[in-house]
Amino acid sequence: MNFRVSAKIIGFLLILIGFFMLTGIPFSVYYGSDDIPALLISGLSTALVGSLLWFLTKVDPEEEIKKRDGYLIVTLGWIASSIFGTLPFIIHGSITDFTDAFFETMSGFTTTGSTILTNIEALPYGLLFWRSMTHWLGGMGIIVLSLAILPMLGIGGMQLYQAEVAGPSKEKLHPRVTETAKRLWAIYVILTFAEVILLLFGGMNLFDSLCHSFATLATGGFSPKNASIAFYHSPYIEYVIIVFMFLAGTNFSLHYFALKGNPLNYFKDSEFRFYLIFIFLIVAAAAGYLFYHNSQTIESSIRDSAFSVISILSSTGFVTVDYEKWATFFTSVFLLLLLMGACAGSTSGGVKIVRYQILLKNSFTEFKKLIHPQAVIPVRQNGKAVSTEIVSKIAAFVGLYILVFFLCSVALAIIGMDLLSAMGAVAACLANIGPGLGTTGPATNFSSVPELGKWLLSADMLLGRLELFTVFILFSPSFWKK
Amino acid sequence: MNFRVSAKIIGFLLILIGFFMLTGIPFSVYYGSDDIPALLISGLSTALVGSLLWFLTKVDPEEEIKKRDGYLIVTLGWIASSIFGTLPFIIHGSITDFTDAFFETMSGFTTTGSTILTNIEALPYGLLFWRSMTHWLGGMGIIVLSLAILPMLGIGGMQLYQAEVAGPSKEKLHPRVTETAKRLWAIYVILTFAEVILLLFGGMNLFDSLCHSFATLATGGFSPKNASIAFYHSPYIEYVIIVFMFLAGTNFSLHYFALKGNPLNYFKDSEFRFYLIFIFLIVAAAAGYLFYHNSQTIESSIRDSAFSVISILSSTGFVTVDYEKWATFFTSVFLLLLLMGACAGSTSGGVKIVRYQILLKNSFTEFKKLIHPQAVIPVRQNGKAVSTEIVSKIAAFVGLYILVFFLCSVALAIIGMDLLSAMGAVAACLANIGPGLGTTGPATNFSSVPELGKWLLSADMLLGRLELFTVFILFSPSFWKK
Repeated sequence: MNFRVSAKIIGFLLILIGFFMLTGIPFSVYYGSDDIPALLISGLSTALVGSLLWFLTKVDPEEEIKKRDGYLIVTLGWIASSIFGTLPFIIHGSITDFTDAFFETMSGFTTTGSTILTNIEALPYGLLFWRSMTHWLGGMGIIVLSLAILPMLGIGGMQLYQAEVAGPSKEKLHPRVTETAKRLWAIYVILTFAEVILLLFGGMNLFDSLCHSFATLATGGFSPKNASIAFYHSPYIEYVIIVFMFLAGTNFSLHYFALKGNPLNYFKDSEFRFYLIFIFLIVAAAAGYLFYHNSQTIESSIRDSAFSVISILSSTGFVTVDYEKWATFFTSVFLLLLLMGACAGSTSGGVKIVRYQILLKNSFTEFKKLIHPQAVIPVRQNGKAVSTEIVSKIAAFVGLYILVFFLCSVALAIIGMDLLSAMGAVAACLANIGPGLGTTGPATNFSSVPELGKWLLSADMLLGRLELFTVFILFSPSFWKK
Repeated sequence: MNFRVSAKIIGFLLILIGFFMLTGIPFSVYYGSDDIPALLISGLSTALVGSLLWFLTKVDPEEEIKKRDGYLIVTLGWIASSIFGTLPFIIHGSITDFTDAFFETMSGFTTTGSTILTNIEALPYGLLFWRSMTHWLGGMGIIVLSLAILPMLGIGGMQLYQAEVAGPSKEKLHPRVTETAKRLWAIYVILTFAEVILLLFGGMNLFDSLCHSFATLATGGFSPKNASIAFYHSPYIEYVIIVFMFLAGTNFSLHYFALKGNPLNYFKDSEFRFYLIFIFLIVAAAAGYLFYHNSQTIESSIRDSAFSVISILSSTGFVTVDYEKWATFFTSVFLLLLLMGACAGSTSGGVKIVRYQILLKNSFTEFKKLIHPQAVIPVRQNGKAVSTEIVSKIAAFVGLYILVFFLCSVALAIIGMDLLSAMGAVAACLANIGPGLGTTGPATNFSSVPELGKWLLSADMLLGRLELFTVFILFSPSFWKK
């Protein structure tokens, strides 16, 4: 274990976090908010702590970061960011309870979007901006994490592409990470700005456009408005956000290829096709229901269902309608969608489509094997054979995911929540979506969850975001040996 | 495909079924019930159809049964039994609707125990005896199926022991099946008689003792009493049934070794230990709740919780208390238990403990692999390495099981059931338990389920009982080729 390297990197991260805390100040000045001292104190002290860690830690420049350091840095990075990220809220006094502030910030950095705020609009502009910024920074982290770091640590849906990404040195974090990260961030920034401009066209002001674009690209879901996107009553704005939630739920390496001139690559990817077809089917079913049973127009049926389905599936969690008021059939569909997530290599949370897809293919391959016992029939994804090792790795992840989901739901039920709300809250946090079902559903928030429950749900957000193993491995005694 | 052999075996099965329909007649005579003509007509006509199939089908004595025939015979066998098994109810007129009669009989033969009867005690004695007999015959079928036939077809939790069971010829159903079957049936009969005698000691009459023992050993759950076991208000009877439900949920080959003089074999089996510890933990939690919150005595707390937990886990489905009235925490625990099932090689339904155990071990093995990437660390069960092929086979089964569970729940929700009841009903039927949750919970029955829903649930019972693949494979076009 190389604690000095870990400390240095966390230090660097805190300097960045501190700097980004200050970015909301121009809005505070413009709108005359009272949060400028809080932002200044928080930003500068965070950057100071970061600088101390950075400058006081001596590291041999030849030293390489090992896999083990990777697990520690990633987990500590998210925790440290979420602790220091609470400072603006606490110093300003708009969130007084540390549990609440930590829940809100962890929800931000993990791009979950669950909130404990009952009146979001009461927050000053600088804090609202910082709240949305945590999403955007978290999303940046996730892009690199899911496409570059986790596959090298042997974790994550993208491990399928491991051979390509990891390069010759499997034991050390490859320097190519930096290059990959830069490319992916460029796409992330470009898409964010594209959304900002399109939202400005729709009459949304610059502040709201930035906040919502941050939350969309990160598939976070924080909105500076209490009513979320429903506030605007604008079909145009809803369509723009539908498109960008969809894009944020897509594997970012496909965007990279598309921008390099190969847009057809999208359709060569089996997971993307599944994502597209699955959304189409659920949206069609939900739109049909809204059209026939709720007597909505065709256009608003399609818009409302597309918004809700893509918002949940991409794990964004923006709200335009309370889908819990639709038929029970949809409540059950939404419970499925909650755990599903969108594509690997996107900013979305959940189990990710590719994992379900491979497990499903594995089930069907078993039939073929039963009929042709002598034949060797591998599971195939994008034309390549998936080994039984990978299948059992995926089964290990999904099994653990469901176990965590179940145990946490039972734990919340024990401390007093009703079962559906408990399951909804855990699913919403573990899969980094935001709104759950029942008392934490789209029409309400997480303020009523008991104190202990908030800590448990904060842990779920982190576990889900870092794909379980990254965090759990730190609790294994043999991880710390030698 | 060898249809003649299949027809001959189904014919033999129907002769047996027809004969067993007559076994209730002595009770009808004794109690003066009006169902003797119905039983005679049903029994003789079933046996006649069976005899025609048997005698008119010419089979080359040298011909062997192939794997493919196995799938067909097993599935058709259960369906044919369930169709002919409805005759006594329909001819007597106590169940007039064919859907209801088929649901009830399929529920019997699959040892599910879900009933559409609102007043069970209104049925004459001969029919009640036949109803319980379907459980006992189904249980006999399952013992052979799970310990001898399915492993050879490459299906089922017992495939882990496949190498030992299947013998040298993997393509043909081995003649040793007959010998294995005889031994296991002997144990099944011995245990049934032991329970009958113990229940007689408790003051239960011979008729009720036989019916309840049939239902216990088969982990079925049909009772000739509306109130199920709660009717007797007898702690002794409840304890006897607790013990035998537990034994029926245990791998029958362990009973075989125990009777041969190796009772310690029970504790050498990893699945049995898990079964024991798991029951202990859940019963302790539930008993604690009943003691502290319901102010019951220690004895009745333990008895009530042990009865409910073992009844659900063994997939029997007998009822002494309405556990849905306990805290929501327990409703969620029971939802988990519903899909779980007991040991492989028992008459219980569900996914079976060994499968969950291996998937769980697989998840933990992944940690070790992440920490020691170079090491070869297999999943171990009973000291033997489990290959990743087996792990991915199990993942295929569990994945498909959850998919079927979910799709059927959604289908029931679409045709008008509330979500919890739909999930409860599907779980109860797919896992062959009996009572579900909500409107099909322990305090009620399946009579209110819509017509289409009853067919779907009947299909679920068969799918669950035959471990999915046996049935689904018949729908594969390539199964029928060549």
